[in-house]
Amino acid sequence: MATQSTTAVVAYAPANFGVPNFKHTTVNLLRSSPGPNEVLVRVLAAGICHSDIFIGGIPDSMMGTYPKVLGHEGAGYVEAVGSSVSSVSVGDPVLLSYTYCGECDLCLSVDDGPVYCQKFTEMNAICAETVFKADDEKEVGGKFFGQSSFASMSLVEEKSVVNVKGLVNGDEDLKLFSPLGCGLMTGSGAVVNAAKAKADDVIVVAGLGAVGLGAIMAGKISGCRAIIAVDRVKSRLDIAKQIGATHVFDTSGMDVTAAEFGKDFVTKVRALVGGEDAKIKFAFDTTGVLPLINAMVKTLTKRGKLFQIGVPTTIPTPEIPLDIQDLFGGTKRIEVHYLGECLARDHIPKMIQWYREGKFPFDKFVKFYPAKDVAQAVEDMKTEVIKPILVH
Amino acid sequence: MATQSTTAVVAYAPANFGVPNFKHTTVNLLRSSPGPNEVLVRVLAAGICHSDIFIGGIPDSMMGTYPKVLGHEGAGYVEAVGSSVSSVSVGDPVLLSYTYCGECDLCLSVDDGPVYCQKFTEMNAICAETVFKADDEKEVGGKFFGQSSFASMSLVEEKSVVNVKGLVNGDEDLKLFSPLGCGLMTGSGAVVNAAKAKADDVIVVAGLGAVGLGAIMAGKISGCRAIIAVDRVKSRLDIAKQIGATHVFDTSGMDVTAAEFGKDFVTKVRALVGGEDAKIKFAFDTTGVLPLINAMVKTLTKRGKLFQIGVPTTIPTPEIPLDIQDLFGGTKRIEVHYLGECLARDHIPKMIQWYREGKFPFDKFVKFYPAKDVAQAVEDMKTEVIKPILVH
Repeated sequence: MATQSTTAVVAYAPANFGVPNFKHTTVNLLRSSPGPNEVLVRVLAAGICHSDIFIGGIPDSMMGTYPKVLGHEGAGYVEAVGSSVSSVSVGDPVLLSYTYCGECDLCLSVDDGPVYCQKFTEMNAICAETVFKADDEKEVGGKFFGQSSFASMSLVEEKSVVNVKGLVNGDEDLKLFSPLGCGLMTGSGAVVNAAKAKADDVIVVAGLGAVGLGAIMAGKISGCRAIIAVDRVKSRLDIAKQIGATHVFDTSGMDVTAAEFGKDFVTKVRALVGGEDAKIKFAFDTTGVLPLINAMVKTLTKRGKLFQIGVPTTIPTPEIPLDIQDLFGGTKRIEVHYLGECLARDHIPKMIQWYREGKFPFDKFVKFYPAKDVAQAVEDMKTEVIKPILVH
Repeated sequence: MATQSTTAVVAYAPANFGVPNFKHTTVNLLRSSPGPNEVLVRVLAAGICHSDIFIGGIPDSMMGTYPKVLGHEGAGYVEAVGSSVSSVSVGDPVLLSYTYCGECDLCLSVDDGPVYCQKFTEMNAICAETVFKADDEKEVGGKFFGQSSFASMSLVEEKSVVNVKGLVNGDEDLKLFSPLGCGLMTGSGAVVNAAKAKADDVIVVAGLGAVGLGAIMAGKISGCRAIIAVDRVKSRLDIAKQIGATHVFDTSGMDVTAAEFGKDFVTKVRALVGGEDAKIKFAFDTTGVLPLINAMVKTLTKRGKLFQIGVPTTIPTPEIPLDIQDLFGGTKRIEVHYLGECLARDHIPKMIQWYREGKFPFDKFVKFYPAKDVAQAVEDMKTEVIKPILVH
């Protein structure tokens, strides 16, 4: 069977833990014809999510091997479909999200669902399947989140594909919507699906990347009484204000490792919304910074709930010194949620609808880069660029 | 208005933190006639719960002042009712439980309810109201959980009172049922109300006091596939086996402060029910021992949930070194629940029904003591006596 050449941002083994080694190059698809449950997608664009950078910075063999093609916020058109594929046809515009086994107890559970699939990590994070070959015949892993959309042509699992025919108007629209498959879904889904926030609720969101800002917009859509945005980058706080935050809290002058950080954070954040009477019901952490997570739990009101929706950092240790007395006295709750508990085929059309109605203005914080400029895009994410989108 | 003399176990300020100073003596009720929302109850018996001992061991003024009358698992008969009381009449047998304001956002919330009352601590734990006077005219606090049932005659909040007319057969029955108002409700309610455990679930319960054993019995009632009981006292593990545990795990040979404790616990507990494939869905901690709580979280399967239903100990620190990577990778959840999320008037009749059907054999682990022998009862709780009941 003839192979097909495609450009791709390939991740090679990093020299230093945490620093991805991305190169824009040409690889060959192993097969031009999709397998029974695969869709061949011509990828127009793919958002960069922090998980691409985090996983691309994990040394060889700790979480799958290199080289591999990451990318899990893809948008494109269907070029060919496998024999069992029923949800899309050739030519359909699609947005790409996560995959799952569909057969395990959690996939089938009403209380849990596919986003908690027992095989989630192996099917989404490992790039276990070889999908590409380099010019020197070396195997290149694919199927990251079932899609590996950092390649301009990819073999995608049907389960990762959401048909958006009738919902998008041309290529520019489709490119803009590429980030809907992960970050924005994670943040907005956490608020509307997991927390089910209501009009009288006060929420706090830490970390104003796409996940955090997705939560802010969803908080406004839910009519939350107060929405507190926390970050240490002023431009991000400014955007949060524009899109729905009622209050912002700048941590740039604070040392999160200081002993008094937690108490200081609680006092000052509560002061924004009523002091001792502040009833902060839901906290959403997208930072993974352990002392901040601890402080977020402490700032909650009785029966409050912290949603851990960002990957925790492990520095200096993986252990969070959770104040169990505060937790117990406040009858609080901590929950970890992936991808906003969303079924992509349900939530992506919802976000598109919100965008059309002007309620989900994520276009304010995306920036397009040619895929070859991936290094610059990654660098810019450290400061002011919130959602870079690579255009193939 | 004439005062009425009553015997009572009075708690005086402790000499050492953690060691209650209980004395069986005579005090006088401030009023013989109940206020509008009060019920005068002739208390036949009251179970001793660890919260009586914990709170009785907190130094003066840290959590209300001394002397005071504790006791929050009372059973007795109505002697008189206040003008607004509608749920009981003179002569009715009653079981006593917690009180609440009934007016705050959490009391009125469908998702939360009275057990999470914003005023829970001040209305239940502080003994803020003077109900008794000592012979030397010194004020003695009452209304512990609205009842202070360590007195043989007490003025009780109507909200703490559950009418069990038609459900009990005479004094002996009523005495036996006294512990239903707290410990047994907390454990059994956590399983059936909070966790809503189902037939296919595997659960683990740490700490085999009345709360833990209540959870074990409720696990069996719920048909749980496996019920693992954890304790370090052999006789308690034996009772757990008799009443529903499918597996027991003895921690008496383990050092919970050792670095390898957590890993060791997880491996051995999972080995009881399938090793790596063990799907331990719910963990119930009644011990408050921090390294054990941490290990219980780690032993959970993906999407598992830990219910913290026992008061945490604060030694050596109030901080639990929670492994956030394990929590995140497993998309686990931690929840604190009080009193099994029960409305006492709903759950107490349910437990009585279970007992009649032979499904809730808590009579296997109660022991009656004359109230004057309170010191002995407290001493015996340290080892083999699980639920001492003081008989007035």
